[in-house]
Amino acid sequence: MPVKLSAPAASALLPVKGVQLGFAQAHIRKPNRKDVLVITVPENSSVSGVFTLNRFCAAPVTVCKAHLKQQQGIRALLVNTGCANAGTGQQGLDDALATCIGVAQALNISPEQVLPFSTGVILESLPMDRLLAGIAPAVANLKEDNWLNAAEAIMTTDIVAKGTSRQLTIDGQSVTITGISKGSGMIHPNMATMLGYIATDAAISQAALDRIIQHAVNKSFNCITVDGDTSTNDSLILMATGQAGNAVIEEDSAEFVRLQEALTAVAVELAQAIVRDGEGATKFMTIQVEAGQSEEECRKVAYAIAHSPLIKTAFFASDPNLGRILAAIGYAGIEDLNVNTMQLYLGDVLVAEKGGRAASYLEAQGAAVMQESDILVRVVLNRGAANATVWTCDFSYDYVKINADYRS
Amino acid sequence: MPVKLSAPAASALLPVKGVQLGFAQAHIRKPNRKDVLVITVPENSSVSGVFTLNRFCAAPVTVCKAHLKQQQGIRALLVNTGCANAGTGQQGLDDALATCIGVAQALNISPEQVLPFSTGVILESLPMDRLLAGIAPAVANLKEDNWLNAAEAIMTTDIVAKGTSRQLTIDGQSVTITGISKGSGMIHPNMATMLGYIATDAAISQAALDRIIQHAVNKSFNCITVDGDTSTNDSLILMATGQAGNAVIEEDSAEFVRLQEALTAVAVELAQAIVRDGEGATKFMTIQVEAGQSEEECRKVAYAIAHSPLIKTAFFASDPNLGRILAAIGYAGIEDLNVNTMQLYLGDVLVAEKGGRAASYLEAQGAAVMQESDILVRVVLNRGAANATVWTCDFSYDYVKINADYRS
Repeated sequence: MPVKLSAPAASALLPVKGVQLGFAQAHIRKPNRKDVLVITVPENSSVSGVFTLNRFCAAPVTVCKAHLKQQQGIRALLVNTGCANAGTGQQGLDDALATCIGVAQALNISPEQVLPFSTGVILESLPMDRLLAGIAPAVANLKEDNWLNAAEAIMTTDIVAKGTSRQLTIDGQSVTITGISKGSGMIHPNMATMLGYIATDAAISQAALDRIIQHAVNKSFNCITVDGDTSTNDSLILMATGQAGNAVIEEDSAEFVRLQEALTAVAVELAQAIVRDGEGATKFMTIQVEAGQSEEECRKVAYAIAHSPLIKTAFFASDPNLGRILAAIGYAGIEDLNVNTMQLYLGDVLVAEKGGRAASYLEAQGAAVMQESDILVRVVLNRGAANATVWTCDFSYDYVKINADYRS
Repeated sequence: MPVKLSAPAASALLPVKGVQLGFAQAHIRKPNRKDVLVITVPENSSVSGVFTLNRFCAAPVTVCKAHLKQQQGIRALLVNTGCANAGTGQQGLDDALATCIGVAQALNISPEQVLPFSTGVILESLPMDRLLAGIAPAVANLKEDNWLNAAEAIMTTDIVAKGTSRQLTIDGQSVTITGISKGSGMIHPNMATMLGYIATDAAISQAALDRIIQHAVNKSFNCITVDGDTSTNDSLILMATGQAGNAVIEEDSAEFVRLQEALTAVAVELAQAIVRDGEGATKFMTIQVEAGQSEEECRKVAYAIAHSPLIKTAFFASDPNLGRILAAIGYAGIEDLNVNTMQLYLGDVLVAEKGGRAASYLEAQGAAVMQESDILVRVVLNRGAANATVWTCDFSYDYVKINADYRS
């Protein structure tokens, strides 16, 4: 079960002026589930995207990048679950483009104004007949008050729908931000088998929005890992409709900073929700590495801990077998690490220092922290001023079960 | 259960002239199991070692390196299971040295002539009273015909004892090689939570033996992974007693090459045995990456596949969900990889080419290969002449169970 995470109420996901969402049950892979989503934004919206670094990126990712580059003004997004359209060669690209044409015809826009997204099984082709047939019903139920349905329509192995909203005032105008995400396994920075869509009605320049999405993703989706697998399909899209009535926000203004903070907070909540709903997760772990020489080395240590199956299974068992954390720190790749000057904390408890168990440490203290469902692991390297934080979950029987059964 | 692996018969592990082995039940962690091993070699033996690169290396590793450097002529090895003496600070170093003194007194040699080894739980101190008390009974039953007992005495979560022998003729003399190893989890190159001891009665110079151990470890223990965790205690020791009667082998002679081949074959068999007995393993996978630009990039791809929990769970389920392999190839870190020119084979079956599923591929073919317990995954990068091979196992419920329960 997800760790301290439940689906938002429909009323908690606030409409964003100008953004409409419509879904369909198109039987992409399984019957009777929402599996097609169309999102539309008005003319002159700003839209930015960040995508997977996987060399085997899916066909829709390639098409998204091309369409964003053409700057025709993005007007619609099409998402399907059930099939990732990845590892599908030229046919996959043709299919992704054909879906854009389908949406364009239904909305009377051009195909270059459509961004396509797919998530699901790799190495299989899209069921084009069913997907194209799903576009009309999705377009038919487009409305602003449809975010929870949209969040449900993009789920794959997710147990709960993920979404959140924020409101702030800019230029005396109420600005709304609402975002949804999906993802549960094949989750790794850069980015995750995840899709994320965040919309705001703020007016903001394209350049400013491009800056914000990079900042937001670095502080959120690039800080999470479930299993260390980087997906072929990861995409995060940030949309701004400009209908809130504020003056257009430019880079580095006070309003820019405030909107960036709010959008980043939404991204962090959506990213953490993915970890809390990590496949088989029973615990949510924050790995905080402090006082390193560079953010990069802090991230190396944090990810060595966050990726270790031995550590993740020990957390699943609530077993304070903390030597495994020391081992991971030791193999994280810091060549000149002095193990005698660093400290390891579990929650507030000092576990190790001077290369070994802290004199004050009692196993009962570690065991008590391990009983919590949200656990902080703190590593203080004592060799610099840089920090990094990574969020991950434990590794349970159910992770194996889910991934051994996923296709069947 | 181990994948096509059973313990060797006692008679299959051939005595090596000059090497004696003795064990004890010292209740290091659990009662009634062999957990202390002493190995002795005669004067003027050559001994080489390769050790973990983990910065949090265990105290005995530090002591081993120091003693090998002092070149006093290694005469004895002491191994205990149950406690790794890692993450134990200065106390751990003092304890490791004290065990060397204990063995030295029992054998009338100097402490610098003793190499200590520990494996087991990290972050706990050695139970020195019980360990020191175990030395006398182990020394009392030293004999040449004791290799299977020795293999059993170094097991931790291993299900079966691991050992093998080879014989060859050099200078008309019969030369024997016998090796044992342990390891099952926390297995990763450089090296593994593994201990390996290989002895030969061949006469060989120290320089030549140092060359051979590097070659052997690169072709064997540095090619295996179970869970990607690099242990604090990994050690491989190569001993040559010189009692076979051959002329001393120097580097790059024909005899050097033959002995290197035979010793490497023993190392490969011992390394593969660790994977076959990998925690929870039900399948043995050979990941062979061919036609890369460098061995390094081939290894990157091989390890990306071998470490992916998603791939390992799919193999556990015998599910030919092979898109996950494409995803791993895509995130392995080759920046300029052209996914349209590479091929993926499962056994003899061409699965993917031209960036997608091969036209000839039938799911039934993949499913048939997945039913085997030994599976070859072949990636042909078609961008160079370099190759690399990695051996690994699948990821099952039992991996989680074993590692969630290990300490309790």
